[in-house]
Amino acid sequence: MTELLIPDVNRVNCPSRAILEHVTSRWGVLVLAALGERSYRFSELRRHVGGVSEKMLAQTLQALERDGFVLRDAKPVIPPRVDYSLTPLGREAAEQVSSLARWVEHRVPEVQAARVAYDEAKA
Amino acid sequence: MTELLIPDVNRVNCPSRAILEHVTSRWGVLVLAALGERSYRFSELRRHVGGVSEKMLAQTLQALERDGFVLRDAKPVIPPRVDYSLTPLGREAAEQVSSLARWVEHRVPEVQAARVAYDEAKA
Repeated sequence: MTELLIPDVNRVNCPSRAILEHVTSRWGVLVLAALGERSYRFSELRRHVGGVSEKMLAQTLQALERDGFVLRDAKPVIPPRVDYSLTPLGREAAEQVSSLARWVEHRVPEVQAARVAYDEAKA
Repeated sequence: MTELLIPDVNRVNCPSRAILEHVTSRWGVLVLAALGERSYRFSELRRHVGGVSEKMLAQTLQALERDGFVLRDAKPVIPPRVDYSLTPLGREAAEQVSSLARWVEHRVPEVQAARVAYDEAKA
């Protein structure tokens, strides 16, 4: 009867949890947000998302491809060229995480002020 | 001059990265989304967010409190009672992550179908 349960991220074994974890993973957020703006080649994407290793970027893209968010297009050219873009479902995911990332960037000063106040109160 | 840079989550050392990681952490998402609905006592919140350990919930709440998202209210009663709720800034964060969590729950069938198709294509 499991398949009749309504998805609920608060339930330990709900499949929505693993999806949420892919979408909100350290690199998943940044890769989805980047591909929400345009398609990227692997090496370009690696330069755009600061600090990601080749291995982590490959793993992140593969998980997002398997979830149906990312399209991998290997062009039959020499040297090999692989383009990554979003599916319509991936576009929806990218809208969500881009909105979150923009909000965080916008609120950096408030969070930094809160941390100073917290640390002073604890000192 | 660092403080004059415009926050950018794609930059390795940008403070927005650590904030994004707190908000999108495995338990951070679920705790913010829960507190977006109502305030919780620690033990209630632990029951609501399936699978979280006491230690991880305490660490998550402390990071979110330090970032200025969560208010911790220790009532001077016996037995001790601690209520957690959101600040106005936390409410904004909760709106973002709740929207994402609801979207993921809504799209579980599409993601599951994509995974089946991916695994069949690879087999």
